[in-house]
Amino acid sequence: LDYQHVQVPFEITLWIMLASLAKIGFHLYNKLPSVVPESCLLIFVGLIMGGIIYGLNDRSPPVMDSDIFFLYLLPPIVLDAGYFMPSRPFFENIGTILLYAVVGTVWNVFGIGFSLYGICQVKSFRLQDVSLLHNLLFGSLIAAVDPVAVLAVFEEIHVNEKLHILVFGESLLNDAVTVVLYKLFRSFCEMPTIKSVDVFAGVGKFFVVGLGGVLVGLSFGFTAAFTTRFTKDIRVIEPLFVFLYSYLSYLTAEMFHLSGIVAIISCAMGMKRYVEANISLKSHTTVKYFMKMWSSVSDTLIFIFLGVSTIGENHEWNWPYICFTVIFCLVWRALGVLVLTFFVNRFHVNTITSKDQFIIAYGGLRGAICFSLVFLLPDFHRKKLFIAATTVVILFTVFVQGMTIRPLVDLLAVKRKRESAPTVGEQIHIRFLDHLLAGIEDISGHWGQYYWKDKLEYFNSKYLQKILLREYDQPKSSIVLLYEKLERKHAMELAQAGQLGHGLAHPSFLCSAFLCSSSDRTVITDQKLEDTPNPDVLDNMQEILARNLYRIRRTGPAYNRHTLPGDSEPSERAKEILILRHKSL
Amino acid sequence: LDYQHVQVPFEITLWIMLASLAKIGFHLYNKLPSVVPESCLLIFVGLIMGGIIYGLNDRSPPVMDSDIFFLYLLPPIVLDAGYFMPSRPFFENIGTILLYAVVGTVWNVFGIGFSLYGICQVKSFRLQDVSLLHNLLFGSLIAAVDPVAVLAVFEEIHVNEKLHILVFGESLLNDAVTVVLYKLFRSFCEMPTIKSVDVFAGVGKFFVVGLGGVLVGLSFGFTAAFTTRFTKDIRVIEPLFVFLYSYLSYLTAEMFHLSGIVAIISCAMGMKRYVEANISLKSHTTVKYFMKMWSSVSDTLIFIFLGVSTIGENHEWNWPYICFTVIFCLVWRALGVLVLTFFVNRFHVNTITSKDQFIIAYGGLRGAICFSLVFLLPDFHRKKLFIAATTVVILFTVFVQGMTIRPLVDLLAVKRKRESAPTVGEQIHIRFLDHLLAGIEDISGHWGQYYWKDKLEYFNSKYLQKILLREYDQPKSSIVLLYEKLERKHAMELAQAGQLGHGLAHPSFLCSAFLCSSSDRTVITDQKLEDTPNPDVLDNMQEILARNLYRIRRTGPAYNRHTLPGDSEPSERAKEILILRHKSL
Repeated sequence: LDYQHVQVPFEITLWIMLASLAKIGFHLYNKLPSVVPESCLLIFVGLIMGGIIYGLNDRSPPVMDSDIFFLYLLPPIVLDAGYFMPSRPFFENIGTILLYAVVGTVWNVFGIGFSLYGICQVKSFRLQDVSLLHNLLFGSLIAAVDPVAVLAVFEEIHVNEKLHILVFGESLLNDAVTVVLYKLFRSFCEMPTIKSVDVFAGVGKFFVVGLGGVLVGLSFGFTAAFTTRFTKDIRVIEPLFVFLYSYLSYLTAEMFHLSGIVAIISCAMGMKRYVEANISLKSHTTVKYFMKMWSSVSDTLIFIFLGVSTIGENHEWNWPYICFTVIFCLVWRALGVLVLTFFVNRFHVNTITSKDQFIIAYGGLRGAICFSLVFLLPDFHRKKLFIAATTVVILFTVFVQGMTIRPLVDLLAVKRKRESAPTVGEQIHIRFLDHLLAGIEDISGHWGQYYWKDKLEYFNSKYLQKILLREYDQPKSSIVLLYEKLERKHAMELAQAGQLGHGLAHPSFLCSAFLCSSSDRTVITDQKLEDTPNPDVLDNMQEILARNLYRIRRTGPAYNRHTLPGDSEPSERAKEILILRHKSL
Repeated sequence: LDYQHVQVPFEITLWIMLASLAKIGFHLYNKLPSVVPESCLLIFVGLIMGGIIYGLNDRSPPVMDSDIFFLYLLPPIVLDAGYFMPSRPFFENIGTILLYAVVGTVWNVFGIGFSLYGICQVKSFRLQDVSLLHNLLFGSLIAAVDPVAVLAVFEEIHVNEKLHILVFGESLLNDAVTVVLYKLFRSFCEMPTIKSVDVFAGVGKFFVVGLGGVLVGLSFGFTAAFTTRFTKDIRVIEPLFVFLYSYLSYLTAEMFHLSGIVAIISCAMGMKRYVEANISLKSHTTVKYFMKMWSSVSDTLIFIFLGVSTIGENHEWNWPYICFTVIFCLVWRALGVLVLTFFVNRFHVNTITSKDQFIIAYGGLRGAICFSLVFLLPDFHRKKLFIAATTVVILFTVFVQGMTIRPLVDLLAVKRKRESAPTVGEQIHIRFLDHLLAGIEDISGHWGQYYWKDKLEYFNSKYLQKILLREYDQPKSSIVLLYEKLERKHAMELAQAGQLGHGLAHPSFLCSAFLCSSSDRTVITDQKLEDTPNPDVLDNMQEILARNLYRIRRTGPAYNRHTLPGDSEPSERAKEILILRHKSL
């Protein structure tokens, strides 16, 4: 027997196997996962495992290594989250998300830090040796909402899209703030005196960490897209590039002390569109499936290890400190959400209701990130107290909040996610309104969300697509061809009616013509869709529509914000139509 | 900058990235891979990389770690090979393959070892200090044909299926022999005296290593199949089990000093059939795709590392020894193939032609396994000579033999692989002949290949399928239903003609009826196939046919070897037909 030789891969494989089997086990009894979130069950399995190991060896079971967590377990989950991020709601609410993630987290860190320092002044609790800086350091690690825990719970309760993206987006983007504050306070703890310039450097560093992460991510994402241009003859390694480049972006960001989470999310969101167009359908299935599989395994391992690591003698049970930590975490988050939402609602038409606010505050689950950060703390005499408090906060949020949030969502009748996907008609109208609003914003001189989106889309089709896509003119599907045919017919009718010369320069007329024709088409496509109820075909169609509609309109006689009405295009168009008419006559 | 922190994953990712990019690079110029095998190009890239590292650092570049090779790089390739092994030609030629793998390898080991010992006696070569045991040890590692190298070359030259499986099967199964002989001679080298009992223990050990590997592999394979019975609600982790269980089988075998390669191949071949039936189609695409991707990356890395490791100062260039090693490797392999094939051809109708023999001898490529084994040798004063000789043999076989084998195959007009898949008609006839031959073997009392295959198939459908498959009665496709309908119609015609009572007990009549009806059906199915030229549909149909045809025949009034003609089944069948007839009248 030569166990030493195979120990490392054997034990890793066994742990993954245990995690997967535990997952199968839960799903064999259908009722269990519908009541208790899977994350709780997994922590519970971990607790039992830890207890067994503790009982057999009579010493603390191995603690989850922070390096393993940050280097191997976290990236797959964040990659999955970034790749499947619904980009529309995310960008629509990006302001609110950033406000929660940045201001909200800072608020929580200082709120929790200072109030715990207040508690430490009470003599009977015997905590006077915990300094303000240590309390702030603890606050910086305990304040961050954990994306893994949030995802595990929110994926099961199906709240509406906006609410989901607010909590989930916050949990992802607060990483930059957490990284900065945690490292800042940690270095402050080791410095003899703190100058005010250090504090300003810290504030500046936040922008470097966040924006640097975005930059690293996007550059790797675009490189990945560019690489997949050349994989036509060797389809089998296509999926690899998606994983390799995203992982490299994460590691590079970590190497430069930037936010790895922000980097991998930017990378995934940046590459997705182009990679999907370049790689084969089977490669894409593999990418999607493997991402889900990998993140699911990581997720499972994290929760099991959380459970295992809880058992042992790493804790100092000072109950007043621990209890007040839990209370302050809840109170400061609730206050923060209330105050921030008040400001958000003043500037938005679509306000966040008080029910939604409650769920946002209540959904602030803590998880493995806090846990790993607390073990990464430099050794000092109260580290075990912090570990104990962190463990209790995590278990409290995951078990109590995680298990009660579903009944509360039911009780409050929080708006749920719509069950059905938007119809083709809806999608067309949404796109039309986007286009219209971009035009209105441009005319009124208000550089808002739609204006920038339109500019980005223009930049994308003008430069990025040409560089990053293998076939710039994507093969046209039958539905697109149908569109073009209808387009031409419509234009010919206009030409025959002699309205072409005048009509083209008149945006309002064209808008109505667009609305007309698009509703015509909707009828046609809906008919088509009834013939083919296969969801895959439907998805495919909707994607083609979503991608191509804008382009077709632009080549057609539509109102185009980037060419003047007197440009050459319409006259060429008119010429083409005349030729066609000539042929038909 | 914190490079230390991310070094390990960062460098691994970069190496994989380099390997993948090199692969894309070759395929950008289509002409290159059609002349030079990819393995040569990759070694060449590795040589350049090694040269650069050597030039910059002025010391030998890092050598491929044998542990990394055996634990992480080899298993994916062997798993891929085992999973996609064409089981029919493999089992049809298992005797010949085993003969080449066992007797052939032993022949080569002793041949090369003793003749090199002879060379060492020549005084002018200054090799008198290399003992016989060391020469035999070297022979045991240099004699083994390498599956990775063979696969890389033979996948590109498309020789006929039998030739391919003979060379490839040998390269896989000789692992057991290599493991035993290598470890035996290594321990002999360290022993003061060798008793004859040790030699006999070595012979016995071969059976333990080989059969133990098969046993470990099959048990993990069946466990994997059993596990996938329960993954219906959690499809996303299904592919994981295929990888986890195969890897565990490999590691377990290695742990007990059994043949890991044999174990993982048995595991893959054992589970494939059941896993495919249990998991979803998308999971299956992911499994297939990921296996190919993984093995392709491993393969690339191995060849690049081979190149990198070649550069440096690990070598002792004693040219007589090195040249004679190359010559003996070629000569003994050629002799071995000639002698063994002579015996094989005496017992087979379908003989191995002299052209095939030449390709088998010439296709004995050496690769990374020899390379890793030579670095695993215990330190002794002539180790660097062995490393040099191994490197030259590998480079010679991969470059010279690998690059000339394609022109030689063209020149000799070796029978190629058929381009088209067998038609449904062919498949049906092959299956019918199998069934018939099994019956003939049973009647004549000759327990040959077909007899055992039939027994195995019976055991499989009677016990294994019931345990390992989720849905024992697979959903019937339209073509199977058509078959059943035809079956019933045919039986009713027989009943109406009054032949049912006598006909059933008369095998020869039923055989001809079977032949008739199967050719009828072939026409029908061929018609159907012309309507649906989609290759996926065709594959699917052929698979369903291949799986179900036997079962349908058995439930029909066919000759059944496992029930006596007087059994209850036929009478029930007759009753059913009478009822049906009654209804139609």
